Amino acid sequence: MRKIVIGQAGGPTAVINTTLYGLTYGLYRDCALTFIEDGFDGLVRGRFVEGTDEVYSWIEENKNVPGACLGSGRFPMDDRHIKKIVDNLKDIGADALAIIGGNGTMQALRKIENKVKKEGLPLQIIGLPKTVDNDLGVTDHSPGFASAAKYIANATLDMSRDLYSMKNFEQVRILETMGRNTGWLAAASGLYRKHEEDGPHFIAIPEKKLIVTELLETIDNAVEKYGCALVIVSEGVELDLDREANQITRNVVHGRPILGGVSSEIEPLVQNELGLVARSELLGINQRSASMSVSSIDRDEAYRIGTSAAGWIKQGATGVMASIQRKETIDYDVDIKHVSLNEVVDEGERKLPHHFIRDFNAYYEWLAPLVGENTTSYPSPTSRSINHDKK
Amino acid sequence: MRKIVIGQAGGPTAVINTTLYGLTYGLYRDCALTFIEDGFDGLVRGRFVEGTDEVYSWIEENKNVPGACLGSGRFPMDDRHIKKIVDNLKDIGADALAIIGGNGTMQALRKIENKVKKEGLPLQIIGLPKTVDNDLGVTDHSPGFASAAKYIANATLDMSRDLYSMKNFEQVRILETMGRNTGWLAAASGLYRKHEEDGPHFIAIPEKKLIVTELLETIDNAVEKYGCALVIVSEGVELDLDREANQITRNVVHGRPILGGVSSEIEPLVQNELGLVARSELLGINQRSASMSVSSIDRDEAYRIGTSAAGWIKQGATGVMASIQRKETIDYDVDIKHVSLNEVVDEGERKLPHHFIRDFNAYYEWLAPLVGENTTSYPSPTSRSINHDKK
Repeated sequence: MRKIVIGQAGGPTAVINTTLYGLTYGLYRDCALTFIEDGFDGLVRGRFVEGTDEVYSWIEENKNVPGACLGSGRFPMDDRHIKKIVDNLKDIGADALAIIGGNGTMQALRKIENKVKKEGLPLQIIGLPKTVDNDLGVTDHSPGFASAAKYIANATLDMSRDLYSMKNFEQVRILETMGRNTGWLAAASGLYRKHEEDGPHFIAIPEKKLIVTELLETIDNAVEKYGCALVIVSEGVELDLDREANQITRNVVHGRPILGGVSSEIEPLVQNELGLVARSELLGINQRSASMSVSSIDRDEAYRIGTSAAGWIKQGATGVMASIQRKETIDYDVDIKHVSLNEVVDEGERKLPHHFIRDFNAYYEWLAPLVGENTTSYPSPTSRSINHDKK
Repeated sequence: MRKIVIGQAGGPTAVINTTLYGLTYGLYRDCALTFIEDGFDGLVRGRFVEGTDEVYSWIEENKNVPGACLGSGRFPMDDRHIKKIVDNLKDIGADALAIIGGNGTMQALRKIENKVKKEGLPLQIIGLPKTVDNDLGVTDHSPGFASAAKYIANATLDMSRDLYSMKNFEQVRILETMGRNTGWLAAASGLYRKHEEDGPHFIAIPEKKLIVTELLETIDNAVEKYGCALVIVSEGVELDLDREANQITRNVVHGRPILGGVSSEIEPLVQNELGLVARSELLGINQRSASMSVSSIDRDEAYRIGTSAAGWIKQGATGVMASIQRKETIDYDVDIKHVSLNEVVDEGERKLPHHFIRDFNAYYEWLAPLVGENTTSYPSPTSRSINHDKK
């Protein structure tokens, strides 16, 4: 039987184990499977686990569990690491390498593929997409993103109602989302907004320069009109203050900056410049791990990505990434197709496109079918009758 | 028709509008209802809204929406405010005042009741409990708490799996919960924990002095055994550092300290003392507002608190708070009874009891029926087969 080596890499999502399950169950009858522990780190160190019935059952039990059950991680790689990986794969007699990951993973897979080609090895290289940030190219979107977007859209509307109740105590909340250098997640915060009193009243994304005076003016106007203002800011936004504009990082691990903290820099600006009570909050790791708010479409697509990749592996495909291609039908539908790994890597970090930045409603039309409807209907935060009394 | 004045006060919960709905629908056929905007602030300023069919429908539409739809708030009160409130209630010809709130609300209601008694006014005073912190006495628990506990228990387990996947990148997470001066919510974080690799590996609550050396030792041991450590710390915990022990506050509004930030003080301790990568996070406002993780028992009890209070108001009760009394049956069941407002206020902030602090499992047995089962089953984070390979 051919030997397929399978791993997970990068930040986990709520559905990355669903993709692993789809891939495993598409392959285990026909191939020998070997699993990598802890992503590229384990691949370099040769930490492999043979697929047994017990492991397969355990992967099935994990299919709806957040986190990457094989172990994931972030691992900065140089040419020696690539060589070591290829040597390890040769040593165990691998016929194919399939890794579920994001942009960093696809870059690494391309390097491995180049090395393999140079050596003339018959080793297939396949990437399976996952990213909450939605910054992978050549796919309509990636598994993990819709569930994170759903979490953010719900949390924003819920916290908006909380804030609206408490506006005589606290007027401004600044919520910070994930997204790295893209605004897909931050912009998703407005998906369920139906009433102008509800936030977000301002969304700051990395694709657009944040003008602090404009932000403060919007907050001031919202507080004037609604009594409160809810601001969403993406972790990758650069603040345009006196010092040189740059992203705020909370830590650097293995040379990778962990973004986070721009909201807490905005908080004192609001308090000092506008004299309002403001609270900044990171929406946190829960954005990518919350099991309570998984989108059923996301779960379904994550599974199909896995089973489709399994099919291509058996057909001998290499140098490809599984992708989601939206059909041009009235009702939402997708094809799972393979695209060139080179194309994906060359496109790089995919930003929120201009036509969505210009018109968030166009973005929400695109986004809505992935995330699903809000299960609770939220009436206007102020009853019309109460409004009448005020006039 | 008798006139009942209804309001919401203090920090909102995910089910406070359900109690309002129960109360309103228990009364509106038999009484004239008047609603207070923005809690005690509105009561002092005389911001009343007459109950109309339109307002009743709107309250019904809000029954599953988080936040306090009438407007809530925090408002520090002195004797002049109490006098103004009683005058306002006399002016509008109120027969009863019913407010949904926490400890601050019950204290204020007692003062109003004393004033009303002294003046010999026939005005009924009724409190309806709500608090995510669960720090109200003379009730088994309060509406809002179980949903917040469910959110925390789910988030902790989900983030635990996320952390376990990423342990070669980041080893320690310190999650900070709400709870003010009590550990009910922080301790709830372990409710769904079934495997020792999963967090929380340490829970810090305000009822127990935090010994930093003990915390660091526990983290060190967990990282040694499992590769990572997840710590839960209640916002009200005092840090035992060189300076005088005290709670960490992020802000003071209307004289009320907003707790928050102790987790971010622990983060550098872990990094510096243990040389591990640590990340601290506040679980944030979502704990009290998340609509996705409402406990159905909590929702049901919140409603029954409202309808029961409506019944007592019609029967002429005064100086009481609605409470939840757990029956001594094998299957979980409760009675909604009224208790003395004086007793509630005299008990003050109810802490997590000693027998629960000594044995969190006893606490989880008490807590489980309120919160409900975890809908997803989480297998051990490490497959047994993978463990075998390691040995």
